Amino acid sequence: MKSITSAHNEQLKHLSKLLTSARSRREHGQTVLEGIHLLKSYLQAGLMPLQVYLPQAQLQNAELQTALNALPDDKITLIGDGALAKITSLSDADDVMTLITIPRSPNLPRNGDCVVLDRVQDPGNVGTVIRSAAAAGITQLICSKDCADVWSPKVLRAGMGAHFLLEVHTRTDLPTWFAAYPHPIRATALSEQHNFSLYDLDLSAPSAWVFGNEGCGVSEEILAAVSHTVKIPMPGQTESLNVAMAATVCLFEQMRQRLA
Amino acid sequence: MKSITSAHNEQLKHLSKLLTSARSRREHGQTVLEGIHLLKSYLQAGLMPLQVYLPQAQLQNAELQTALNALPDDKITLIGDGALAKITSLSDADDVMTLITIPRSPNLPRNGDCVVLDRVQDPGNVGTVIRSAAAAGITQLICSKDCADVWSPKVLRAGMGAHFLLEVHTRTDLPTWFAAYPHPIRATALSEQHNFSLYDLDLSAPSAWVFGNEGCGVSEEILAAVSHTVKIPMPGQTESLNVAMAATVCLFEQMRQRLA
Repeated sequence: MKSITSAHNEQLKHLSKLLTSARSRREHGQTVLEGIHLLKSYLQAGLMPLQVYLPQAQLQNAELQTALNALPDDKITLIGDGALAKITSLSDADDVMTLITIPRSPNLPRNGDCVVLDRVQDPGNVGTVIRSAAAAGITQLICSKDCADVWSPKVLRAGMGAHFLLEVHTRTDLPTWFAAYPHPIRATALSEQHNFSLYDLDLSAPSAWVFGNEGCGVSEEILAAVSHTVKIPMPGQTESLNVAMAATVCLFEQMRQRLA
Repeated sequence: MKSITSAHNEQLKHLSKLLTSARSRREHGQTVLEGIHLLKSYLQAGLMPLQVYLPQAQLQNAELQTALNALPDDKITLIGDGALAKITSLSDADDVMTLITIPRSPNLPRNGDCVVLDRVQDPGNVGTVIRSAAAAGITQLICSKDCADVWSPKVLRAGMGAHFLLEVHTRTDLPTWFAAYPHPIRATALSEQHNFSLYDLDLSAPSAWVFGNEGCGVSEEILAAVSHTVKIPMPGQTESLNVAMAATVCLFEQMRQRLA
């Protein structure tokens, strides 16, 4: 086990930078998991962290101890009390931080079920879609430019560990990828310009689902490139569901049809 | 049109108190809607605000102007620039604030579809469930004690105006109400102790759906009092959906069966 005594240590500065800057995460190909839950999910997925940082006092935490047992000693760094609290982005996650290499998926999917996000900007929504996709058994996620950074602390928090069950592709040029994807591509549409109602579709075969920006939905350019647009019927008087709820409804309807 | 010149005015102090204190909201039976969207939803529901507060500059805002046209002049108070920004709880909603009487629903529902929240504590989750319930055509919401305050700014924001489409009952003793409710009462259960899988249920008749606390689900006491417990099948490897997503899946499956 290593230990850091100065709170101004270069390693903590590096963690802090990764927590606050998407560019820094991209440049280094690294991110930071805050809290025990994400560390456990990461280890359960069979992945090995670069380094785990925790204050001495957390060595008494039984849940954390069990997780750390799986790690070689040189993967664990003890730091001063309060040092993580100074750099955390989440109020209740200063017990442990885990430095990881962002998992890379070299090739865009050429088949199988996919979830596609078109400029979804709220980190909570992106994380929730990731969690829903994983729960519904979908393992491929493709994000356009201008989505919230999938590997940011808030998205990781909302994803609750589901990130490590998916192949994630970010900053993808969607029309180019669409051209090479062989299955139907469906987008939820806010307007009345839809081809299908969700419950009239046969969702048994693989497909890609596209979900769009919170304010304006899927862009016109993308809508023009998909196989068809889908509306979720709603008897209530509200305008729409939020994007994470809409994604959940579509992905679980697909799952339901396949269970049947 | 009235106008307030001093930023330390009693009315602004009152708004500020309502924005920050659930007790103050209960004592006065009032709350504050932040931003144009909630004001519009409130007016569209045919309700009349106590007072609308906006800075002079917002009189140029066309969207707001259209909303204000529906109001008598004495319902509108002009305030100093920047006065709302000082008390807002949401970073981007300092354009207009609306003081309203919290809608009261005197009698607990004796029939019809209901959504029931058992100690759901995250404001975003409570608001999202409200939005999903309204979209799925359900108009009765019952909350136990220790839920996030339905009329708080964050819950109102997440509800996106769906609050005004529901009858809302807060701080309800659930077992007492269950005893008088004639239809099946279903609770989602985290554990393996469930009676039914969601997609095996016939959801065509009215029922109450109970959704529970983020950390520990529906309490043992409540589980013992419901008609049956339900599991959402999930092929993925994640532990669970969050409570808002689970509610969305259940309420939209119910809706789907009724559309068929």
